[in-house]
Amino acid sequence: MELNLHSEPNGFSEAHAKGKHVVIIDVLRASSTIVHACENGVERIIPVAQVEDATKLIPTLDRKKTLLGGEREGKKIEGFDLGNSPIEYARNVVKGKTLIFSTSNGTVAIAQSSPADEIVIGCFLNVSAVVKHVLAARPKKVAILCSGNLRQLSLEDFVCGGLMVRKLEESFRGKLTLNDAAVAASALAESMDDVGGVVRISSHGQVLAELGFADDLEFCSKIDKYDTVPIVADGRISTQGSNRR
Amino acid sequence: MELNLHSEPNGFSEAHAKGKHVVIIDVLRASSTIVHACENGVERIIPVAQVEDATKLIPTLDRKKTLLGGEREGKKIEGFDLGNSPIEYARNVVKGKTLIFSTSNGTVAIAQSSPADEIVIGCFLNVSAVVKHVLAARPKKVAILCSGNLRQLSLEDFVCGGLMVRKLEESFRGKLTLNDAAVAASALAESMDDVGGVVRISSHGQVLAELGFADDLEFCSKIDKYDTVPIVADGRISTQGSNRR
Repeated sequence: MELNLHSEPNGFSEAHAKGKHVVIIDVLRASSTIVHACENGVERIIPVAQVEDATKLIPTLDRKKTLLGGEREGKKIEGFDLGNSPIEYARNVVKGKTLIFSTSNGTVAIAQSSPADEIVIGCFLNVSAVVKHVLAARPKKVAILCSGNLRQLSLEDFVCGGLMVRKLEESFRGKLTLNDAAVAASALAESMDDVGGVVRISSHGQVLAELGFADDLEFCSKIDKYDTVPIVADGRISTQGSNRR
Repeated sequence: MELNLHSEPNGFSEAHAKGKHVVIIDVLRASSTIVHACENGVERIIPVAQVEDATKLIPTLDRKKTLLGGEREGKKIEGFDLGNSPIEYARNVVKGKTLIFSTSNGTVAIAQSSPADEIVIGCFLNVSAVVKHVLAARPKKVAILCSGNLRQLSLEDFVCGGLMVRKLEESFRGKLTLNDAAVAASALAESMDDVGGVVRISSHGQVLAELGFADDLEFCSKIDKYDTVPIVADGRISTQGSNRR
């Protein structure tokens, strides 16, 4: 199996996604929020790049069953129901709802991955579930795409990707070919094994703490809290067809 | 001091270079060849992006005092005097000569760094000399730009950059602000301290070994072999003004 990790989406093109199973990681916070919302029974998530795309969608949907969520510069978008704090996406808020979701980094990575055989959403919350799900498909090629922050490597995404590489290395029975970024991330995940500390010292983690989201950092650092594996299909995210409990 | 590392040139724009001291790393093999050629007395190196740029320059220069060097896909360019193997650039070959030099990755990074306050060329061969040189300028902002390979992170460049971060951390007396990639590379350089092994397992190292350049890998893995710090100024590389012995 060929396993490539990409430290941020710049060098990742649609050609890199073609014929692959792609795991998209945005630990702070899009992936963590998506996984938590799916765990809490959200019916589907519609990721959109621009705020205008979200407001255009609203009249086509039942507003009572629809939530608008997302952030710009870490803060809730004006007029939206929810921000990008996973803790906001409680069961009584999201169950059975459609969530229109727009974030700075995560949606870009999803768009670039569109030609993939399958796209799943991963973070620390579901590391082992993602690995189990990917291996069950017996893919020939896997790409782990870290969303990064403002087109640069994000420590928390890179370490989370490295942890997935390590778990894939442990579980895969056969020849595994890693690219350099996968080798680097794997070694880093071994040496930086205090995930809570990694998230706190990351530049994005520090910005979020200053904005008052310290609780989110702790929440997003929990390894294997959930078995949920959100899947992106036809531009929608849901747990349909995944190994959700 | 602000210290940013960039794992490859994609996310690095001219805006990132402005007002900074930039260290360009291309361990395999452009940086290593440039450092070795400078150590061996080459008068100046003219980096060019395209082969055509090199052939256009030739009639404007004294051919007897000019060498054409470089590679495409690791191999010597047809009609050129030398490839990109540092070992070819011996003292009796390069001393007093002008070298027109074109490589796949390194010249891109040099072009993107042009607005910098200073650009120097680094690799394992001159890690400590580069750190000493950079610190002597008392810069406020330093960027370490890894050339990478085909727009992806290269293990050998990332670890070499991390080693420079570590040495800057040890030597700098004052507050040092690192970006996430610098934190990651520094931790990786600490955990992957067998540089020869890093270079051999890197994807580019493996390709070069298959092409018959295993000796180059060993050569490029030698830490602090030289004190030479090549400087890029007005599109030319030389040791003028550097702390060359």
